[in-house]
Amino acid sequence: MNSKIVLVVLDGLGDRPIVALNGLTPLESARTPHLSLLAEKAECGLLDAIGVGVRPTSDVAILNMLGYLPEKYYSGRGPLEALGTGLSLKEGDVCFRVNFATVDSQLKVVDRRAGRISDCSVFEKELNGIEVEGVKFVLKAGLGHRAALVMRGIELSPSVSEIDSHAAGKKVPEAKPLSQEPAAKRAASFLNEYLKKARVVLKKHKHNKERQKQKLPPANYLLVRGAGTPPKLPSFEEKYGLKSACVAAEGLYKGVARAAGMHVIPLNGATGKSDSDLLAKVVAVKKNIPNYDFLLLHVKATDNFGHDGDFVGKRNFIERVDGALKELVGLHHAVVVVTGDHSTPCEMRDHSGDPVPIMFSGDGLRKDNVKKFGERECAKGIVGRISGKDVMPEALNLAGRAPLFGS
Amino acid sequence: MNSKIVLVVLDGLGDRPIVALNGLTPLESARTPHLSLLAEKAECGLLDAIGVGVRPTSDVAILNMLGYLPEKYYSGRGPLEALGTGLSLKEGDVCFRVNFATVDSQLKVVDRRAGRISDCSVFEKELNGIEVEGVKFVLKAGLGHRAALVMRGIELSPSVSEIDSHAAGKKVPEAKPLSQEPAAKRAASFLNEYLKKARVVLKKHKHNKERQKQKLPPANYLLVRGAGTPPKLPSFEEKYGLKSACVAAEGLYKGVARAAGMHVIPLNGATGKSDSDLLAKVVAVKKNIPNYDFLLLHVKATDNFGHDGDFVGKRNFIERVDGALKELVGLHHAVVVVTGDHSTPCEMRDHSGDPVPIMFSGDGLRKDNVKKFGERECAKGIVGRISGKDVMPEALNLAGRAPLFGS
Repeated sequence: MNSKIVLVVLDGLGDRPIVALNGLTPLESARTPHLSLLAEKAECGLLDAIGVGVRPTSDVAILNMLGYLPEKYYSGRGPLEALGTGLSLKEGDVCFRVNFATVDSQLKVVDRRAGRISDCSVFEKELNGIEVEGVKFVLKAGLGHRAALVMRGIELSPSVSEIDSHAAGKKVPEAKPLSQEPAAKRAASFLNEYLKKARVVLKKHKHNKERQKQKLPPANYLLVRGAGTPPKLPSFEEKYGLKSACVAAEGLYKGVARAAGMHVIPLNGATGKSDSDLLAKVVAVKKNIPNYDFLLLHVKATDNFGHDGDFVGKRNFIERVDGALKELVGLHHAVVVVTGDHSTPCEMRDHSGDPVPIMFSGDGLRKDNVKKFGERECAKGIVGRISGKDVMPEALNLAGRAPLFGS
Repeated sequence: MNSKIVLVVLDGLGDRPIVALNGLTPLESARTPHLSLLAEKAECGLLDAIGVGVRPTSDVAILNMLGYLPEKYYSGRGPLEALGTGLSLKEGDVCFRVNFATVDSQLKVVDRRAGRISDCSVFEKELNGIEVEGVKFVLKAGLGHRAALVMRGIELSPSVSEIDSHAAGKKVPEAKPLSQEPAAKRAASFLNEYLKKARVVLKKHKHNKERQKQKLPPANYLLVRGAGTPPKLPSFEEKYGLKSACVAAEGLYKGVARAAGMHVIPLNGATGKSDSDLLAKVVAVKKNIPNYDFLLLHVKATDNFGHDGDFVGKRNFIERVDGALKELVGLHHAVVVVTGDHSTPCEMRDHSGDPVPIMFSGDGLRKDNVKKFGERECAKGIVGRISGKDVMPEALNLAGRAPLFGS
C-alpha cells in the first residue's frame, strides 16, 4: 500500500440547520458532486477537533488534528502567525498577531481592520526594525490587514495583556504585564513605547494620506494580541516519517506548517478570502503528490462566511470548493481526507463545538453508505465520532503507513 | 443565543429487551408522545455515564455527568446523602448513609428497610446528638427508611467497614477499622458503641411499640455504610458560570446538588418513589427557568422498578414521566437534555453498564432522524456514543455557552 495522504481542511466548515435552506446546513444544501464522488469510496464520520462540545480556535484545532497536543505544544497564536508570514523565529522571541486598524484621535477604534485594507506591506519598511531600549521590533505583513510583530533582544515574557478593545467605539487599552516578573513588565512597557512610535509613523505615512484622499479609513494603529513564544514541535517527518507540504493562504496555517517542519508551497492567487484561486491550490496539491507523502490543503473562506452569517455565500463557496476538488477525484494510491477544523454556524456568527463531517476516501477502504458529504449524513458513516487526535492515526492506518504497536 | 439548560436524569432508565414486552425495553415499549416531541428537535445518542461497559452507582455517575471527575472528587456516598438531608458538614466529619432496618434478637437482618418504613424522622430526636467519648453523632432522617449519620468532634477516619449484611437472615457485622491508623480504630470502636446505644433507644421507642401493635416490622437497628468525608467541589457557578438549581426528591441528588453549590428547590409531594408528584417537579423546573441558567431534574423511581424487576411498572412509570414532561415541550431559548445515569435492567434487578439514551433538544440544532426516545433508536442519532464527562460540554455548546478553547 503506502498511499499518499492528502488532508483537506475547510475552515469553519460545520454549521447548523438554516430555516431558509429548508432546514439544511450550507454544506448539506450545497451541490457537491465531487465530494459525493469522494464519499463513494470513503469511510465517513464526525470529528471533534478537540473534544465533544469543545469550541476551539483554528490554531489549537489544527495542532491537535496533526497530532500535536495543544496542552503540550501550544504556545500562543502570535508565533504561529509570525511563522506564517515567513519570519524566522529565535528562542526568546515574544510574538504577536497584529491587525492594522483605524482609530480616532482619542484612540477609540473606528475599524478593527482599517476597512479590510488589502495590503499592509506598504507600511512594513517604516515599522520594521524600530528599537526600544535594546529591544528590536520586527514587523512583517501578512494577508490583508494582518501582520506579525516580534520583540527580540533581551529577556522578555509573553505575559502581557492584549492591545485590542475588540469593538468599534471602545478605546484601545495599553499593554499591561500579566505577571510580576520583570520580564513581563519590560515587555509591556516597551511594547507600549513601540506602539506610540508606530502611531507617529503611521499618522504621517504617505499611504495613509493617499487612503484619506480616497476616503478610505487610514491604517493608523496596530492592534496587538496572541502573545507567545516560538513553539517547539517535533517535526512531522520525525513524528510520522512523512515528507510533508502545505498549501494554504492564511498565515496561521502556513505558520503551523512551518512549525511542524512542513514545506510551504508558494502560491499566487491564494488570498484566504472568497476570491481565492481554489483551483490553483488544489492543482498545486495534486502536482506535488509525487513529491511528498503528506499534503495539507487549507481553505479559509468557509469560516469567514460563517462569521459574517452569510449562509448563501457559504453554500455557494462550498460549491466552488467542490468544483476545485474535482482534481482530487479518482486518485489512486492516495487517501484523501476532507474535513473542517471546527463549525462556524452562520446563525451564531462564531465558532461552535458542533462536530464537523470527515471522510477518508481511497481505494479498497470500507466504504459506507454515505453518499453526500454533510454533517448529518456523515454521522451515519462507519468512522463514528472521532477526536482530532485520531485523525493522523486513522489516516496513516488507511494509507498503510501505521506503525505497529506491540511486538 | 445563551439558552437555558435543563438536564433531566431518569435514574436507572436504561434496560434490556424483555420478551414479555415483545423484545422491547420498558422505555422502547412505553407510549411517550412528549419525549417524541422533544426528540423531534433533538440530537440523540447513547451515554456511558462513566465509560463503556462500566456499571456505576448513581453518585459517581451524576458527579461525572456534571463534570466532577469521580477519581478526583468522590469522597464517598455518606457525605452526599448527609448533605441531601440538609445537614451542614464540617471539615473532619465522617459521614454515613443509614438504613433503618429490622433485626431479630440475634442481630440477624429480618428486613433491610424495616418494611419500607415511610418516615423514620420520628426516631430522629432520640438518636441525634448522642455522644461517645467526645464524639458527637448527628443523625438526620431522609426519605422513607433512609437517614444520614455524621461523627464529629475528634480526628476520625472514614476507613471503617460497613455495618450491613446486605441480606436478610445474615447477622449484622460490627464495624472494623480498614487501616491501622488510630483514627480508623477510634471511628470503628465509637461507631459500634453508638449503634449499641441506638439499639437500646430503638427497642423501647414508642413508635416501634406502635409498629409492633400494627404487625409492622420495628425499625430497631441502623445499617450503616458509605463512609466518607465532606466532598470539596468547585461550585457549578465557578466552574461553568451558570446559576443553577436542582429539583429532586432523593437525598443523594440533593446532596450532590448542594455539594456543587446548586440551589435545591423545596418541593412538596416529591417522594423519590412511584407516587412522586412528577408534574409538580417538572412544573417547579419550568417555573424556575427564568431564575436560573441550569436546572437539574432528577426522577428516582425508574431505578426502583428496575431493582424490583417490575418491567410493566417501569414502563408505566416512564409513561407517567412522559406525561409530566409535556411541560418542557415547546420551550424556546432552552436546551432540554433527557437521559439516565445508568441502566437498571429489570431482568438483572441491578445496575448494568449498558449505555442509556440521551437527547439534546432545542431550537436550531442538528435534529436527526430519531423519532422515539429509546435505547436502540438513540443509537442511530447524530450524537453517537458519548461519555458522562461530555454531557456538560455538549450541553454548553448547544446552548451557546461554551467557552472558547485557544486564542
